[in-house]
Amino acid sequence: MRFCLYLHKLCIFGNTSSLFKNNKLKKYLLHTFDLLPAKNGEEPTMQFLLEVVDILTNYIRKTFDRSTKVLDFHHPHQLLEGMEGFNLELSDQPESLEQILVDCRDTLKYGVRTGHPRFFNQLSTGLDIIGLAGEWLTSTANTNMFTYEIAPVFVLMEQLTLKKMREIIGWPNGEGDGLFSPGGAISNMYSVMIARYKYFPEVKTKGMSAAPRLVLFTSEHSHYSITKAGAALGFGKENGYVPLFVNATAGTTVYGAFDPINDIADICEKYNLWLHVDGAWGGGLLMSRRHRHKLSGVERANSVTWNPHKMMGVPLQCSAILVREKGILQGCNSMCAGYLFQPDKQYDVTYDTGDKAIQCGRHVDIFKFWLMWKAKGTVGFEQHIDRCLELSEYLYNKIKNRPGYEMVFQGEPQHTNVCFWYIPPSMRNMPDGEERRERLHKVAPKIKAMMMESGTTMVGYQPQGDKVNFFRMVISNHAATRSDIDFLIDEIERLGHDL
Amino acid sequence: MRFCLYLHKLCIFGNTSSLFKNNKLKKYLLHTFDLLPAKNGEEPTMQFLLEVVDILTNYIRKTFDRSTKVLDFHHPHQLLEGMEGFNLELSDQPESLEQILVDCRDTLKYGVRTGHPRFFNQLSTGLDIIGLAGEWLTSTANTNMFTYEIAPVFVLMEQLTLKKMREIIGWPNGEGDGLFSPGGAISNMYSVMIARYKYFPEVKTKGMSAAPRLVLFTSEHSHYSITKAGAALGFGKENGYVPLFVNATAGTTVYGAFDPINDIADICEKYNLWLHVDGAWGGGLLMSRRHRHKLSGVERANSVTWNPHKMMGVPLQCSAILVREKGILQGCNSMCAGYLFQPDKQYDVTYDTGDKAIQCGRHVDIFKFWLMWKAKGTVGFEQHIDRCLELSEYLYNKIKNRPGYEMVFQGEPQHTNVCFWYIPPSMRNMPDGEERRERLHKVAPKIKAMMMESGTTMVGYQPQGDKVNFFRMVISNHAATRSDIDFLIDEIERLGHDL
Repeated sequence: MRFCLYLHKLCIFGNTSSLFKNNKLKKYLLHTFDLLPAKNGEEPTMQFLLEVVDILTNYIRKTFDRSTKVLDFHHPHQLLEGMEGFNLELSDQPESLEQILVDCRDTLKYGVRTGHPRFFNQLSTGLDIIGLAGEWLTSTANTNMFTYEIAPVFVLMEQLTLKKMREIIGWPNGEGDGLFSPGGAISNMYSVMIARYKYFPEVKTKGMSAAPRLVLFTSEHSHYSITKAGAALGFGKENGYVPLFVNATAGTTVYGAFDPINDIADICEKYNLWLHVDGAWGGGLLMSRRHRHKLSGVERANSVTWNPHKMMGVPLQCSAILVREKGILQGCNSMCAGYLFQPDKQYDVTYDTGDKAIQCGRHVDIFKFWLMWKAKGTVGFEQHIDRCLELSEYLYNKIKNRPGYEMVFQGEPQHTNVCFWYIPPSMRNMPDGEERRERLHKVAPKIKAMMMESGTTMVGYQPQGDKVNFFRMVISNHAATRSDIDFLIDEIERLGHDL
Repeated sequence: MRFCLYLHKLCIFGNTSSLFKNNKLKKYLLHTFDLLPAKNGEEPTMQFLLEVVDILTNYIRKTFDRSTKVLDFHHPHQLLEGMEGFNLELSDQPESLEQILVDCRDTLKYGVRTGHPRFFNQLSTGLDIIGLAGEWLTSTANTNMFTYEIAPVFVLMEQLTLKKMREIIGWPNGEGDGLFSPGGAISNMYSVMIARYKYFPEVKTKGMSAAPRLVLFTSEHSHYSITKAGAALGFGKENGYVPLFVNATAGTTVYGAFDPINDIADICEKYNLWLHVDGAWGGGLLMSRRHRHKLSGVERANSVTWNPHKMMGVPLQCSAILVREKGILQGCNSMCAGYLFQPDKQYDVTYDTGDKAIQCGRHVDIFKFWLMWKAKGTVGFEQHIDRCLELSEYLYNKIKNRPGYEMVFQGEPQHTNVCFWYIPPSMRNMPDGEERRERLHKVAPKIKAMMMESGTTMVGYQPQGDKVNFFRMVISNHAATRSDIDFLIDEIERLGHDL
């Protein structure tokens, strides 16, 4: 087998990073033009890709190694000025493959290890090996979800996976529609678009002036993408006018709170409003028998956003918009561009999903998710979710009565979000008031900056309403353990002690 | 070096695809739970990833091998029923790593080789090895373009690359703004949104009712995404009312035609309209000194869509929206979500681009493009584009007077699009008229169906206006040569001869 022969050739030199040097191919003389499809390009192509994989697997190994830093922080101007051997500027002339490999190594070196067990900064964390393999394959296949013709397997995987997700939501027989979109904000935008189309289909051709002035309802803590969608789609964000759409958030960004879907659904049914559930963050809990009750009533929604790239640990990006009514996504978005979607093909063209989307070509986001589902089974996702929630419970119990901590909201968190202030010793006896508020507001940013400079861990902070900056801890990383939670708390105290 | 030791261990068994079997790790007993971050997960992880890479590199090698088929066509119901050993259904229980590898292999087996030298079906074709390596790295880094905090290197790469693109467009000092979006349709939608914001900023908060009834102008052959954006954003597609926005297409989807940008810009200046240039397909020609005159006047546009994933051979997805006026993208889309974009960070937060986008997290589409630019240099892109256009000229000259061919439009193609009817011998003496039209309409679909069944090549067809189905040949694949063009023509004649 040729591949293996290459590997063998590579190995005998002992050090993969200097392969080309020890080899008659002379990497420093080689350029992209020497790779496939160039004549005799096969050997350098395989060697180049193996060197890249060497860099990547080293990175992966270190990502899970707690003695490695989460990041090696530099300011924008530092990176722009150029680090030794790493220059971001583009030039007119080609670089050698040797330099390209250096560029790859340095890009990872100055980046952030989002899969590190101590990276807690975002809702999307972790590095799932199966999901990663799925992404490598997806890139290699290099196609899009435009038609069955050019993505037969991926189109069917998407269809089956969306059906399974609708079954889990609880729609009868998993009927309905949906697609994977470039993130929760776009999924939410889809929900607003189809709601408008459902009640005022003439808007599609006549514009917003064909409808009365419409209004969208959403809670104060809901994600800003609902407001963005409203602005983009021409609703504005004024109060008043005719109600059209209600968004219930299942897992808010900061608090991880769940709106009472059943209560909201009652109102929507009474007044004939579109009910959307934004489960971008909380949707994953549907996979857990222990936690899915938090989304009770989700089966009454007209549409649901659910991002497997958040709580389910799927690599970015992977967000689904799920719609209960079949055909409406097509009705809303199709422009019947016959020059793109030919009706006279030899296969069943209902599998050509391109015209349902607002995108034309749509990135293949399904494969990694499908592959992870195969590898973990439904039970594997359940275990992942239960474990993350247990960890956040551990954190909550650890700090709720610990000296120097104040919880931002009372009671156990519903999701993995644990929101808290750390009060440095110097402030613990300060009376409540503006001065204390002002000082406290600066504590989290200062600790965070020191964390990033030292590169040991990362956790988010933000203000919310009249609440000054507080830490928001979230757990979606399957690599995190109790020891990492302990480490985070120790680190906050170490860095914040003298503030 | 440990990696190399693994490689070596792998090699000595001779056949990488049965590694685990010959190895005490016993792949068939291993599951995703045994991989990192599991205890002792490092060795199985590295072995698993190398097996995946083995599958991928084999696929890549075959992609460039003309004796390999472009596709192995199956109908949806066949794939859904399950091919031997390949079952698309998701189950509750986990599958072994051995099965996961089989799933990977089969996913590729039943897909379409979009990098094959004889795949001409889409505007995006080819498999660039450097771009692919860039995608593998991007997946491994698994972050998004939300903030500098979590994607420092990628954020700066995007900024520098967009600036370079604006320089090439011809905006003074490359000033302006922009971002990479999930495809040309979304880039075009951005252009409509910011144009509306520019002239009627109150729409953002008050909705479309705050503006007069607005209208967008675009040519009949422009991409349907402009109409989709109009519908989505609440414009409708009615005639009349106040003109706001003019789209000039640089490279239409079917004909590859270029609108006269300077003439349109004159009108836009006179009437104070927003000029958008949709260069999703034709933007790449800006890299070529020989062909950039076709976009003459592009520097007068207010915004430009330009998809490196089309004519520049960058892997999917990679589309830029470029905006001449600085700050307007931010003004249009920002919702100032302080809980997501904290102003009190230790670094210069103008690098946090998240709030400029309608997405929240934004996929990292920049790295592969940046890396390709490094590897090829500006001159490398120029060569690629000139070569593709030469090839299409070769095709045009080959068939324009060849018996059995009729060109759909007269004169040399402006882009790589060559549109033609193939007339089977049995129809060559038929008089013009409805019967001939009806028969001709069925020729391209029949040939295409046979092509797909035999898997030898793929080229698109479509009707346009009152023109019956014709072939649209496009060339963006750097692997294609004159012999592949000859092959396509031979294949059309072989399959269509007896129709």
